[in-house]
Amino acid sequence: METWLINKSIVVIGGTTGAGLSAAQAFVRNGANVVVVGRNPESCLMAELNLGSNARAKQGDATQSQTALDAIQLCIREFGSFDALYHAPEDHEEPSTDGPLHNLGLESWRKTLDQNLTSLMLANQAAVRTFMGMNKGGSIVNLSPDIASTESNLASHAGTTAKAAVIGFSKSIAATYAGHDIRINVISTDTSMPADLDGTAVYLLSDHARFTNGQVLVVDGGRSVLEEQY
Amino acid sequence: METWLINKSIVVIGGTTGAGLSAAQAFVRNGANVVVVGRNPESCLMAELNLGSNARAKQGDATQSQTALDAIQLCIREFGSFDALYHAPEDHEEPSTDGPLHNLGLESWRKTLDQNLTSLMLANQAAVRTFMGMNKGGSIVNLSPDIASTESNLASHAGTTAKAAVIGFSKSIAATYAGHDIRINVISTDTSMPADLDGTAVYLLSDHARFTNGQVLVVDGGRSVLEEQY
Amino acid sequence: METWLINKSIVVIGGTTGAGLSAAQAFVRNGANVVVVGRNPESCLMAELNLGSNARAKQGDATQSQTALDAIQLCIREFGSFDALYHAPEDHEEPSTDGPLHNLGLESWRKTLDQNLTSLMLANQAAVRTFMGMNKGGSIVNLSPDIASTESNLASHAGTTAKAAVIGFSKSIAATYAGHDIRINVISTDTSMPADLDGTAVYLLSDHARFTNGQVLVVDGGRSVLEEQY
Amino acid sequence: METWLINKSIVVIGGTTGAGLSAAQAFVRNGANVVVVGRNPESCLMAELNLGSNARAKQGDATQSQTALDAIQLCIREFGSFDALYHAPEDHEEPSTDGPLHNLGLESWRKTLDQNLTSLMLANQAAVRTFMGMNKGGSIVNLSPDIASTESNLASHAGTTAKAAVIGFSKSIAATYAGHDIRINVISTDTSMPADLDGTAVYLLSDHARFTNGQVLVVDGGRSVLEEQY
Repeated sequence: METWLINKSIVVIGGTTGAGLSAAQAFVRNGANVVVVGRNPESCLMAELNLGSNARAKQGDATQSQTALDAIQLCIREFGSFDALYHAPEDHEEPSTDGPLHNLGLESWRKTLDQNLTSLMLANQAAVRTFMGMNKGGSIVNLSPDIASTESNLASHAGTTAKAAVIGFSKSIAATYAGHDIRINVISTDTSMPADLDGTAVYLLSDHARFTNGQVLVVDGGRSVLEEQY
Repeated sequence: METWLINKSIVVIGGTTGAGLSAAQAFVRNGANVVVVGRNPESCLMAELNLGSNARAKQGDATQSQTALDAIQLCIREFGSFDALYHAPEDHEEPSTDGPLHNLGLESWRKTLDQNLTSLMLANQAAVRTFMGMNKGGSIVNLSPDIASTESNLASHAGTTAKAAVIGFSKSIAATYAGHDIRINVISTDTSMPADLDGTAVYLLSDHARFTNGQVLVVDGGRSVLEEQY
Repeated sequence: METWLINKSIVVIGGTTGAGLSAAQAFVRNGANVVVVGRNPESCLMAELNLGSNARAKQGDATQSQTALDAIQLCIREFGSFDALYHAPEDHEEPSTDGPLHNLGLESWRKTLDQNLTSLMLANQAAVRTFMGMNKGGSIVNLSPDIASTESNLASHAGTTAKAAVIGFSKSIAATYAGHDIRINVISTDTSMPADLDGTAVYLLSDHARFTNGQVLVVDGGRSVLEEQY
Repeated sequence: METWLINKSIVVIGGTTGAGLSAAQAFVRNGANVVVVGRNPESCLMAELNLGSNARAKQGDATQSQTALDAIQLCIREFGSFDALYHAPEDHEEPSTDGPLHNLGLESWRKTLDQNLTSLMLANQAAVRTFMGMNKGGSIVNLSPDIASTESNLASHAGTTAKAAVIGFSKSIAATYAGHDIRINVISTDTSMPADLDGTAVYLLSDHARFTNGQVLVVDGGRSVLEEQY
């Protein structure tokens, strides 16, 4: 067994399905305890069975103020500590059907921004407040939303705006809380295979990355660098 | 008289006060016709007097769907064309009192994002739709919000998030509409002297910048490059 | 006549042919005095005839230590001042025939780096020393090398390395000399039409850009932003 | 024992002292075989003793064409494979005494560029050629030069130029060789504790980072993000 995350207790928002669940499995394989949060009760049940005795699942809507705090408290109660947050956006039952700017409705625009940013802010806030309250450092990784998740192939300008906002938010709070020994980094991806991100997530939450703060790790097989070719 | 903007008809959202008014004056000095939009009726009156016969002022709330479209239609009716949009955020009567993440309220977070992003999206949408409808190109410049505008000296994490979103939005739509000969660029600043931005705004809206698209011009006297020193 | 560069005395390295000559013409049209430098005596003669009474041409090899200093002294003697430097790399008679890394020879690598970086360093050094010696500010614009200038269509990894070095050098010295009121910016391009860059060069050397320092302006019609689309 | 690098055979240029030796130790702890290269015979001897039976040391000057190739061949002969290259610049016995641009000598400028870039190019070329010749993928990590390594506290503009060149070179070749399943990434740092970089190096050379290509990982405890604070 690997031990990169031994003695780490980690809350994974959006951890009962998709990229969040895949990461949670990798965290457990590397020695961590995890609490996963998801909206769907059945996914929670399945995730807890799947993840084994080092994991707890908590049903909740992460766009509500209390959800992340409750999960963090459960993490502390069950595992005696809270060391890291992994925020993976959940797929939405009714994905916003926004598209390119010239066809975009004001309500879709607001909904996409809210879906992508409210849960992010609340979970990061709960983690930062807890780390500060416990007078200890900690690590946060925010997975940037997969902007290709809408079914159509059209540009989602609300989605790309939200993606930029996630990165700006993370860098900004990284600068503010560096003095509190809290690290915040982003994984940015366009891939559709959730497991591709697991190694990067394990690395960033581990102490091997303890001098890495405010960074955006692009995990896309080099697609972005290919396009930048000049 | 300079002629960098001769024969250009330009709508300036937030153009009756501050950086928007200063830019509108520079546009007129460089040969342009302008329509300025502001919330306050008295500011509109003063701006029209100040700007002279090549300008019209239109009172309106740019967070409402119709405002930018109405201004564009006025521009076409009065000056026979619509060539460019300059979006300068208006100061808010009740600036959102958000602060660093650990003290941030959910309502302040949502309000700051909405104040900074709704007017931006609506005005850019109205401009893009009009350019496409007229089957002609055009130029848009978005002024990124001045995140130091809150009275306190504290970090505004909602503000920095909005700033990143403005840039991401602008780059993303620049890529989509480049094929329609529509250019979108951003002026990013932290300075408090509105007139410092005028030359950059004139340049970006002029044909001298016709090969510049999707760029962020930082106008801060080199402050950011000083900090990047590594 | 435009007046964006009225009363400015500008030295243009590589100003007797190509993008440098085109920029020098634009500088004169905007009211500047210019001294252009080129290796070829006939190009110097033609450039002086072409540019008119507000220009002088000086023959010299810009990879030699004295050339830029001599041109600056000529500029001061003839026009009474030295306010700005525009560094446009000259085409080489024997362009380095480098290619992708796996085919690259050590001598080609060194030659490409040297051809692109020595003249840049010497000219910027001469300008900075003169500005400091005269105890006045000034403006420098470095045109990044056109990496597609080699005849083949293959990647030139030495060329892209030099391009990155030009940008890193310019940002680094911009930070150091900001306190001396010296601004250094870069125009980065892949276009083959030299005149496309003229408006950007006029803007950056003018006082309208006096709060812009350490920036890279990409002038490529949006090609780079299209490729960044994510 | 960790197993992130099990079955990997890695050549470490500059691996007998400093950050290179520290990384080589971490590679061995994670299951790799390593060949380390250094100029000093005694450092080679000490490194081989220190690293144990899974390591070989090879004396050589990495600015000579043959050195990296020889090390790669030794790696294949001894361990049956060659999977990755780690390029850590060696400290120079006579560090170039360059400084800020206005005091910089042409010979110091050339020497600093050559010291930082020749060994980089040759080692990357040898690795890319070998991977292509074996018709297999591979991973390269280039450690960007520590620009604070000169004794003085003054800016080294030659050093910052070289640093930018290392990054530009790495991104450019990453784009070209992505189709050959060769990944090239950069670790950029300003820290003086070599061991701080070990975890990042292990991660980037491991298969956990197999979808990461052309990226720059800044390992500086968040110093750069603090300075970007806007």
